[in-house]
Order: sequence, then C-alpha cells, then structure tokens
Amino acid sequence: MQLLITGGAGFVGARLARTLLQRGQLGGQAITRIVLADMAPPPADLLADGRVEARVGPLLQHCEGLRDEAMDGVFHLASAVSGECEADFDLGLRSNLDSTRALLDALRHRVNGGAAPAKLVFSSSVAVYGPDAAVPMPAIVTDTTLPTPQTSYGIQKHICEHLVADYTRKGYIDGRSARLMTVTVRPGRPNGAASSFFSGIIREPLAGVEAICPVDAGVRHPVSSPQRTVDGLIAVYEASREAYGGRTALNLPALNISVAEMLAALEAVAGPAVRARVRFQRDERIAGIVANWPTGARADRAAALGLLPEDNFADIVRQYIADCRAAHTGPGTPDALKGLA
Amino acid sequence: MQLLITGGAGFVGARLARTLLQRGQLGGQAITRIVLADMAPPPADLLADGRVEARVGPLLQHCEGLRDEAMDGVFHLASAVSGECEADFDLGLRSNLDSTRALLDALRHRVNGGAAPAKLVFSSSVAVYGPDAAVPMPAIVTDTTLPTPQTSYGIQKHICEHLVADYTRKGYIDGRSARLMTVTVRPGRPNGAASSFFSGIIREPLAGVEAICPVDAGVRHPVSSPQRTVDGLIAVYEASREAYGGRTALNLPALNISVAEMLAALEAVAGPAVRARVRFQRDERIAGIVANWPTGARADRAAALGLLPEDNFADIVRQYIADCRAAHTGPGTPDALKGLA
Repeated sequence: MQLLITGGAGFVGARLARTLLQRGQLGGQAITRIVLADMAPPPADLLADGRVEARVGPLLQHCEGLRDEAMDGVFHLASAVSGECEADFDLGLRSNLDSTRALLDALRHRVNGGAAPAKLVFSSSVAVYGPDAAVPMPAIVTDTTLPTPQTSYGIQKHICEHLVADYTRKGYIDGRSARLMTVTVRPGRPNGAASSFFSGIIREPLAGVEAICPVDAGVRHPVSSPQRTVDGLIAVYEASREAYGGRTALNLPALNISVAEMLAALEAVAGPAVRARVRFQRDERIAGIVANWPTGARADRAAALGLLPEDNFADIVRQYIADCRAAHTGPGTPDALKGLA
Repeated sequence: MQLLITGGAGFVGARLARTLLQRGQLGGQAITRIVLADMAPPPADLLADGRVEARVGPLLQHCEGLRDEAMDGVFHLASAVSGECEADFDLGLRSNLDSTRALLDALRHRVNGGAAPAKLVFSSSVAVYGPDAAVPMPAIVTDTTLPTPQTSYGIQKHICEHLVADYTRKGYIDGRSARLMTVTVRPGRPNGAASSFFSGIIREPLAGVEAICPVDAGVRHPVSSPQRTVDGLIAVYEASREAYGGRTALNLPALNISVAEMLAALEAVAGPAVRARVRFQRDERIAGIVANWPTGARADRAAALGLLPEDNFADIVRQYIADCRAAHTGPGTPDALKGLA
C-alpha cells in the first residue's frame, strides 16, 4: 500500500513514518511506499529507507500532482501553528484551509475518475475548544463539547474537520478527524506554537539550559506523549467506520496536568538542579492565548478504540530521555541530556 | 449609511430591502443607499427606489470591486440552496464557501486600508444541525447544540459561521451569524431546497393547484414567517455586541410544528376544499434529507433580544394571504388566491 504523510518531516510526522516503517503494515496491508510531503526534507534515517520518498515545498503546490497519483491512505498533519496563524492571517488561511481543500479535492478527483476512496486521518487539535461569551467552556472538554475556537488556528482546524466529514459523507474519502492534545516533550528548538513552552520547560532544563515558563504554575492543560499521539493516529486509521462512529472529530487521550505537576515530575526523574533551571516570567500574549484553552480533556470515543492516556507525566519525561539516548549514536553526552551529566 | 444585501433579489433579501427602505434607518442611521447583489435583478418596486442599486451576477465576481467601496453594513444572504448543493458539490463550495470568503476578504481589505469594520449579518441555517452516529441530535436543538451537519449546505453554512466569528475576533468585521428557520410561506415557484414543500403545501392549494407533500404528516419542523425572519435579521444587526453575546451563531425564533398542524391551520383559514388539494406522495430523497433535520428549535439568545416566534401557524397563513392581496394591484383574482375565489 502507498501512504502520504503531509507534514511528514515534522516531529510527529517523522515519528509516525518511523513507526509505520517499523510495523511494515497498516491495517494488515504491507506498506510499499510512504511519501513524506513537507516544507523541509525529512530526517536522514527516513530518507535512507527505500520505501520513503520526500516531496519538499508547500503542500498546495503538490496537490495538483496528487490528482494523478494512487494513494491508499493519507495522514494529513501539515499545518501552520497557532502563533504563526495569529501573526499572519493569510498564512493560516492558505496553509491550513486552502491546502486541506486542495488535498481533499485531489483525492475527490481520483474517486471521480473511478478510484476507490483513500483513507484519510486529519490531525485536528484541542485548540478547537475555547470559551465564548454565549457558550461557557466546561473545565473538561469532551467529544461532544461545542467547539467555539478562539484562535485562527483553532477555527481553521475545526473548519477542516467539517470538510473531512462532508467529503467522507459524499464518498470522496474515508476520512476521520482526531484532535491531538498538546504533544510534549517535543525535541529541538521552540516553534511558533503558543504551546511550545509545554515542551521547553522540560527539554531545556534537561539540556542544561534555562527555560522560561510564560504562564502560572497553576495552569492546567491536556497533554500527550509523542508516541501515544502517533499510536492514536494509527488506531484511528485502522478503526472500522463503525468503531470510529459517525463523522464527527474525536479527542485523542489526554493526561490532564498542571505546570507545577509537570515540573514536579521533572524533578522526580532528573533531580532538583534540573528543575531549578525553569524560571517563571509571565508573557501576556502567550498567557492570554493559553487562558482560552481547556484545562483538561476527556476522550471517551478514543477509549472505546482502546486508546488511553499515559498514567503519569514522569513516564513522559522518561520517554523523552530514552528517545534522546536512542538518537545519540556518537560518543560523548547528547546535548539534550547535558543537564543530567 | 450604505448597505449591501447579498441575495438581495431573492425572497428574503427583497423583503428585507423593502422593510429597510420603509424604516428609512438602521441602528439610528439614515439609509442613503442599498446595493442588492444577486444572480437576478431585484423586483421592479425596489429598482424604482432611488436609494437602490442592483448588481447582477455571481457574488464572487462582485467581491473584487467591493474592496474599493465603502459599506457600513452587509446582510449576507446569498447562497446556493440545499438541494442544489447535494446535486452539484462544486457549486456549493463556490457559491457558499468561496463567495463568503471573498466577501469577508474584501471587507478585511478595507479595514487594512484604514476603514472602520463593516457590520455584517450572516444568514446561517437550522440545516447546520443533524444527527451523527457519535452525537445524537436532541429533539429540540438550542443555541448550544453541537452542529454535525448532514448536508453540504449545512456544512458550508456552519463553516461560514466560523469564518465570520474569526474575522470578527480579528477586527476585520463586526459579524453576527443568525440561523434562519425554514421560512414559510414563500411565494412563487418551488426552488431546489429540500424544504421547498413546507411552502408549497400552503401556497399551491391557495392558488387552486394540487400540491404534493413528500413526507409524512407527522414530520415536525421549526418554521418562521418571512416577516419574523426579516425582523430577526434586523434585530441581530442592531444588537450591541454585548447583547448579541460572544461570536457564536444564534438561532432565530422557531414555531415548532408538524405538517398535519400546518394543514389544519390551512383548513381553519381557507376551508376544507383548499386543504383537500394536498396529496401525500412520499419522495425518498427529500424524506431522507428531512429526516436528518431537527424536529424543533429553541432560540434563547434571540428571545433575550426580544425576538419571539409566531403564536400559531394560522397567523402565518393569514400573513401570506395578506401579502398576496397587497401585491395584487390590478383587477381580478390574484393567482395565488384562486383557491379562495
């Protein structure tokens, strides 16, 4: 089978690709080819796999070509992130709305030409939830909470959920939308997402670097580890339509946790000296965005698919440290673990 | 003040224009100009008013020009209807999504150029509601019911609600979305809307013509008269942002009624011979669409703005007959009232 992963060079996309290549099959079908479409080329280990093909550039440019290309399945992860979309309204419309529409239309074009509809998993986001004056947001959002997004990113994700639902209803795709919780701990550098600090306050101290937390320690948030997130996307892909249930987006599992609890877990795993590298310095812009996010999420439909959140955040910190060690093949101390040296 | 009504030659749009011209003001400001944009030219009585200007053709074509034109307020009613959108997927995307986006971008362009944001009322629809396997629809939908639309028309209306909310949040417009109930009794000929029969089963018998009802008599549905609908749009326009509440769409008032009750009201007003002209002949396509619509609606936010549904359907039938008589200026019996002759 042939798969397309948009955003396939990104952190979640590359991890998804690695997991799929290691499994070798998806839904019982052998994976013969994975196309990774992204703005940047994928990591070298992925490019070294004979089944992997990279397609570099804006997704919008690739969609025309996809009309002539057989794809059995698509994981649509490509997206401009929340901070970028707030700063550049047109970028969000183009990268998140227009690109998704072009992708869906390419898949529809194939069905109109006689092909079987491709399976598609769309990565939506917990950012679809937000408080509106007319609709108070519950403390814990569920699969059936009314989304009233308070960012362009959230609006665009929610709109795409509805496009995926309608293209599915019409038989142009077999689409499913899964709302990702905030993925933490992300490696690498901070990105433009307002949620970036949820990784930074763990990653930077472990690397021996000071981290700034722009919100209060009491802020609560639903998070998920990278691997549970990838496992969730695969499970949603493999679920039957009956098991997925309807066409409405579902929440992936969340560990609902406060910043203080995250830092306590960091201290429990890595010691007080590492924990002490986090400094609180409020950033009104980020704190304002985060204040409009839910403080926790429930994922009943995901649980029915067998998907559960992590038991505790210490396990997530340990997963991150293990990932860093595994990625480190040369001699010496991996940068990301300098704080533990 | 200068106003734009998209869909301004349509039944609701023309009635809105007449009502506004008669009032002479909106929100306390004198109306100096109303641009009616539509596929067809507006009725002659509107064109005869010196304040009215017609713009004929697809809305998408007019939006570029709107970037250079000062508009204080917009009523955005233009839309391809539900039956059309099911039959022609591209038409729905173009007429409902792309046109709305182009309109919003034209208004944004003006704000980016230094103009004050235009006020905009978007006419959404009760068709945003529908049953999804994962989200059962309540018998009576409310302002906070999760929309899971089951038609392309409903999906597109709901997507536009979210665009209006985000352009408003960003300060590009002062936008409000009002969900219209099924407007009945519409004059003229049946249109491509699956709900068209809700007018036909009253209008045709009154004109001495047989009408076919494609659904069972027990089917319940939220309806509203043309005038209450127009009054609702105006009230939503005139409401302060605080009174409107948040940025989420609100329901306009609904009279929740069954087909049997509608026909009983017809008989009470016009007699059994008129009622007898309605024949039941099930149309599976229409019955299938209607089965996915809510059987009633509540409109708490509209009620807080002072908007209430009609007391009974007989009043709606009488309003329609009075409208026909008022429109009839020549000698003889107006066609629409032949059944009462």
